[in-house]
Amino acid sequence: MGNTFGQLFRVTTFGESHGGGIGVVIDGCPPKIDISDADIQYALDRRRPGQSEITTQRKEEDRCEILSGIFEGKTLGTPISILVRNRDARAEDYVDVAKQFRPSHADFTYEAKYGVRDWRGGGRASARETIGRVAAGTIARKVLRAFYPKIDIVAYVIQIHEIVGKIDKSKVKTKDVDANIVRCPDAAAAKKMISLIEKVRAEGDSLGGVIECVVRNAPTGLGEPVFDKLEADLAKAMLSLPATKGFEIGSGFSSTRMRGSEHNDPFEMRSGKIRTSTNYSGGVQGGISNGEDIYFRVAFKPTATIAREQQTVTASHEQTMLTARGRHDPCVLPRAVPIVEAMTALVLCDHALCQRARSWSKE
Amino acid sequence: MGNTFGQLFRVTTFGESHGGGIGVVIDGCPPKIDISDADIQYALDRRRPGQSEITTQRKEEDRCEILSGIFEGKTLGTPISILVRNRDARAEDYVDVAKQFRPSHADFTYEAKYGVRDWRGGGRASARETIGRVAAGTIARKVLRAFYPKIDIVAYVIQIHEIVGKIDKSKVKTKDVDANIVRCPDAAAAKKMISLIEKVRAEGDSLGGVIECVVRNAPTGLGEPVFDKLEADLAKAMLSLPATKGFEIGSGFSSTRMRGSEHNDPFEMRSGKIRTSTNYSGGVQGGISNGEDIYFRVAFKPTATIAREQQTVTASHEQTMLTARGRHDPCVLPRAVPIVEAMTALVLCDHALCQRARSWSKE
Amino acid sequence: MGNTFGQLFRVTTFGESHGGGIGVVIDGCPPKIDISDADIQYALDRRRPGQSEITTQRKEEDRCEILSGIFEGKTLGTPISILVRNRDARAEDYVDVAKQFRPSHADFTYEAKYGVRDWRGGGRASARETIGRVAAGTIARKVLRAFYPKIDIVAYVIQIHEIVGKIDKSKVKTKDVDANIVRCPDAAAAKKMISLIEKVRAEGDSLGGVIECVVRNAPTGLGEPVFDKLEADLAKAMLSLPATKGFEIGSGFSSTRMRGSEHNDPFEMRSGKIRTSTNYSGGVQGGISNGEDIYFRVAFKPTATIAREQQTVTASHEQTMLTARGRHDPCVLPRAVPIVEAMTALVLCDHALCQRARSWSKE
Amino acid sequence: MGNTFGQLFRVTTFGESHGGGIGVVIDGCPPKIDISDADIQYALDRRRPGQSEITTQRKEEDRCEILSGIFEGKTLGTPISILVRNRDARAEDYVDVAKQFRPSHADFTYEAKYGVRDWRGGGRASARETIGRVAAGTIARKVLRAFYPKIDIVAYVIQIHEIVGKIDKSKVKTKDVDANIVRCPDAAAAKKMISLIEKVRAEGDSLGGVIECVVRNAPTGLGEPVFDKLEADLAKAMLSLPATKGFEIGSGFSSTRMRGSEHNDPFEMRSGKIRTSTNYSGGVQGGISNGEDIYFRVAFKPTATIAREQQTVTASHEQTMLTARGRHDPCVLPRAVPIVEAMTALVLCDHALCQRARSWSKE
Repeated sequence: MGNTFGQLFRVTTFGESHGGGIGVVIDGCPPKIDISDADIQYALDRRRPGQSEITTQRKEEDRCEILSGIFEGKTLGTPISILVRNRDARAEDYVDVAKQFRPSHADFTYEAKYGVRDWRGGGRASARETIGRVAAGTIARKVLRAFYPKIDIVAYVIQIHEIVGKIDKSKVKTKDVDANIVRCPDAAAAKKMISLIEKVRAEGDSLGGVIECVVRNAPTGLGEPVFDKLEADLAKAMLSLPATKGFEIGSGFSSTRMRGSEHNDPFEMRSGKIRTSTNYSGGVQGGISNGEDIYFRVAFKPTATIAREQQTVTASHEQTMLTARGRHDPCVLPRAVPIVEAMTALVLCDHALCQRARSWSKE
Repeated sequence: MGNTFGQLFRVTTFGESHGGGIGVVIDGCPPKIDISDADIQYALDRRRPGQSEITTQRKEEDRCEILSGIFEGKTLGTPISILVRNRDARAEDYVDVAKQFRPSHADFTYEAKYGVRDWRGGGRASARETIGRVAAGTIARKVLRAFYPKIDIVAYVIQIHEIVGKIDKSKVKTKDVDANIVRCPDAAAAKKMISLIEKVRAEGDSLGGVIECVVRNAPTGLGEPVFDKLEADLAKAMLSLPATKGFEIGSGFSSTRMRGSEHNDPFEMRSGKIRTSTNYSGGVQGGISNGEDIYFRVAFKPTATIAREQQTVTASHEQTMLTARGRHDPCVLPRAVPIVEAMTALVLCDHALCQRARSWSKE
Repeated sequence: MGNTFGQLFRVTTFGESHGGGIGVVIDGCPPKIDISDADIQYALDRRRPGQSEITTQRKEEDRCEILSGIFEGKTLGTPISILVRNRDARAEDYVDVAKQFRPSHADFTYEAKYGVRDWRGGGRASARETIGRVAAGTIARKVLRAFYPKIDIVAYVIQIHEIVGKIDKSKVKTKDVDANIVRCPDAAAAKKMISLIEKVRAEGDSLGGVIECVVRNAPTGLGEPVFDKLEADLAKAMLSLPATKGFEIGSGFSSTRMRGSEHNDPFEMRSGKIRTSTNYSGGVQGGISNGEDIYFRVAFKPTATIAREQQTVTASHEQTMLTARGRHDPCVLPRAVPIVEAMTALVLCDHALCQRARSWSKE
Repeated sequence: MGNTFGQLFRVTTFGESHGGGIGVVIDGCPPKIDISDADIQYALDRRRPGQSEITTQRKEEDRCEILSGIFEGKTLGTPISILVRNRDARAEDYVDVAKQFRPSHADFTYEAKYGVRDWRGGGRASARETIGRVAAGTIARKVLRAFYPKIDIVAYVIQIHEIVGKIDKSKVKTKDVDANIVRCPDAAAAKKMISLIEKVRAEGDSLGGVIECVVRNAPTGLGEPVFDKLEADLAKAMLSLPATKGFEIGSGFSSTRMRGSEHNDPFEMRSGKIRTSTNYSGGVQGGISNGEDIYFRVAFKPTATIAREQQTVTASHEQTMLTARGRHDPCVLPRAVPIVEAMTALVLCDHALCQRARSWSKE
């Protein structure tokens, strides 16, 4: 409980920021899926620190090693374990943190919950933990492609602070997303975002924003009412990510200001299929995918680690001032894009397996 | 999979809108908790249809029967099963629906997923399913009170369409919420909301809005990183409710427009305890409760059932026009307030048991 | 935790012996399976008390009511809930038990665990709980037949006390089993068993024995190593039944006295299929079914309730003598036969769904 | 599903015999438990190949590396990951096996289930997988000791082929068990067992036997009726081990030949506690521990790998003769003793956490 995600495609992550390594075990992967180290490394490289001027300068190669579950390039149906060693671990940067609680970090709550914590680099609460999610998400995506060859999962930065990109979610491609270092496929907005991030970093401060994700060519029928609705599992997946504060699917919060007559998605026949003419539902109705694009947005708060002096208290209950050290991202969103995609793939893959278990259709 | 929620306090709901009844089985409830029929009935009455002029006029008493798990007024530690029979079931209202898909309802997706559906009143996708959640939530709240006598869970309507209430979440009480039929504890806003709902209903249309929920005097230490973070499970719980489109905790989406230096919650000592001076985090840091008020907001779309003609298609793929019949709520939010509280109680109770299992502290 | 069995075909039972009723919720059943009340009633009637002279004389019709999940004779894919009311409940028979612990019953351990118990008729520990299992098992068997039309599950009494039946497990049929009231398809042995049961009952005593179960025409590939091996889940299923003390599959305990060269099952080609020439493995190798007959035996202890005076202690820690009242079976095995079959069907159905989820084969 | 065991103390093993390594992730371990590498290494050494003349001569040091979850010698409450690299891996010994199915091994069933397999050394079906179980069991035992300082878990060989040891289960200690290489604490029987194993090995054959395990000073109240009864979870745990064919608790199969009046365990007061004067129940009544010694026996078949020619078929469906190569144990029981103890500790620890979650008592 806590470190496992999924029912049938079941992912367990482990590892602390400055311990022996970060890793993941994936249980329930179908056999005979082609997986190479390179597939996983590609995804890890998109998440890796130090990949551009606007990310943290911690230097981690994040080399993955597949320990089990794959033989001669194919999944065996047995648990796949992947390990990434921690390398550039400067525990000395965190000596202060051992005795102080960084504001809006998990230092205090881990101490309160467990009565002990690995204070080096945030320990288990470090975003390094998401390495395991990204590795697993890569495999999930491969499985999804084996089932639904045309399925496409694309996430991108749509907002940084007050700057909002304009993106056509029905067409956006990964290469557009990766065309700039902020991963916003609206080039003009991206430029402004990058400038703002650089400026705010220089000021020792940080920024938040919104990532949008779209899934195209998803099948109908995914989602398990009433509790494991597709949007419920997506919401959980996203709110389980570090620094997230909100989730909305389809029309989201804007639906609250619409009337039913505006908001309802009329059905129509298109190319011999039942489709909706609008898609305020975001591809999900009653918790089940309806074949339209699934799209949702995730709110990320500004990075909690900042290079400014902040008020806090010590473990021995004294008020003090803290200046964070350690290397950090002034804005986590560019590196969070592959993580959002990974969690989306995990949710969809788990639901796809579930639907295969009980469905009579050939798909 | 699908109809069970929770790991240790495990709730399974069953039932269709027009079948033999709606119910719930609760497994894992601690023994020796006082529960009476009246406790559960009180909560069901807050959710019941026909309770005011602005709710559906379907007449259901929603009388609960406890079938098991309680003996001489106390829980036994064995599964508690609660059944509510369906009474005012006019299946004939739904005959059209048998062959047509209502826009933004689950008719089409259930058909796509299962290849069969109970079309009477939405079947399993009916909001009547939430009866089981409310009954279980009542028991969860009792368990929470047994552990933390001062804990308080209060939800209320904070927004209907463009009308936004002003509510002091640190003080609001259930009696303030129930002081008016729209369940918005800002009396002036409530009046406007009620008028708007009545007007829109007369027009055959519907409205959405936002429910906010606050948990006061929650203990520190609840939440199971990394996947079962408290906010992740709350997000899942809320997005598993019918008609919800979004969830945000603490500062939520507004955090995306703040800087780290504004958004971070400084720690301070207050009454001998470690507290934060702001609470943008919403009572949760790193997925674990920090002792501050937990608060979050849930977006509800406008009711899909409207009394206007809408375009749709039939099960045999023909385009047609549909006028919904059946009785419905022009705005689901007033009746959703106890449901949001119930789901909150379920999440907290499950996490409380989980924390008791492993914690060394006496609490 | 505790009252749910299975991962994908998930069964939750509820109910106490003398409470509002006994029931079950089945979640995860595939849609479009034909189920009638009569199917379930047939199975319940095989388990029912008072069905013959050698069973308890408690008169329960055990009429089932399907509350949800089935519409127009077919499963909907939604949770199926089935309720059986308790009728002939003479709580007064158990007044003594409220304050005394019956030897080799669960009275003491329930009190120790929960600090409270429903002492009427054993409460939750009553074998009446298995009604829910039998109802669910009937549906599981229907699902299995839909997947594997030739699959056959037959359990029977093979031993009562020292009397051992001789049965050809490759051929035995349900009608042979039900040909006599002790459910031993060896007529000569059955006759002796019945005489012995009658004699022992007259003496106020009770008997145990062994039930064997065979599954013919099971597919290959069922079982999820390494923990959810098919035999591991069967063992758990059987040891979760009241009064069971042991489980063995294939050669079982007798294998411990064989050498590898005798015990290994040589492979051979037969009718174009890979088969084994012996089947000491009992149809399972490495935790996965190999297409041979799956067979296993379950040890049942003599019924704990006897009509003789026994030494015990009271809830207030005083030594005392107890004479059990209440009606009971002098030997539970005849009525346990359909329960063993039901649990077998639940295990196989769960594993079949699991295998469908990930397998690439058409079967 | 498949590679995870336990609900609250949740163990996931991974790894193939000849892949990158064998390991385990333990999620849900309470914080602040002292664990050292040496603790785990001690247990692994008891399981290690090549430890005596009667075990396989594969030379594996089985050095464990703790990758996460432990900081400064204490558990953090986060997932504990432990890795053991494979060293002495002679894949070439198994080249024949790639194309042939070894009798009574999992080669055929893995191929049938997954359509692919790692044929080197049995792959996932190798008993090397149990390394992860033993490592996890060591931690489980530490947790149990933290809760119940006097609890004791001792397993031993009680039977090899026809030779049966005489052992007083109320007194036997680990040092008695480890006093000889066959791990039978009856010295005279042990001597005979060792001779027989040596003789049979010389003949290229193998032997089976029975391991008994006793848990002394277990608390009352462990076990979660109705499905997760303590004996049900023990049965599953044991039948999930390679080469096991049977399980019996307390009187086990011998109970089937007793009458209720003989078999029932009378209650009595002893040292101020409610005790039973006999313990045919094996420490468990109604699925819940009653404070008496928990004891059970596990049947192990003779090792499937033998050095004799055997009939089998190839993957391309041709009949052939096979002579197994590879190094193997002529009798797995001595090395299985620590594995049985480990699984017992996992079951008890999981149930202990479960009981803590809901119990009101201080224990």
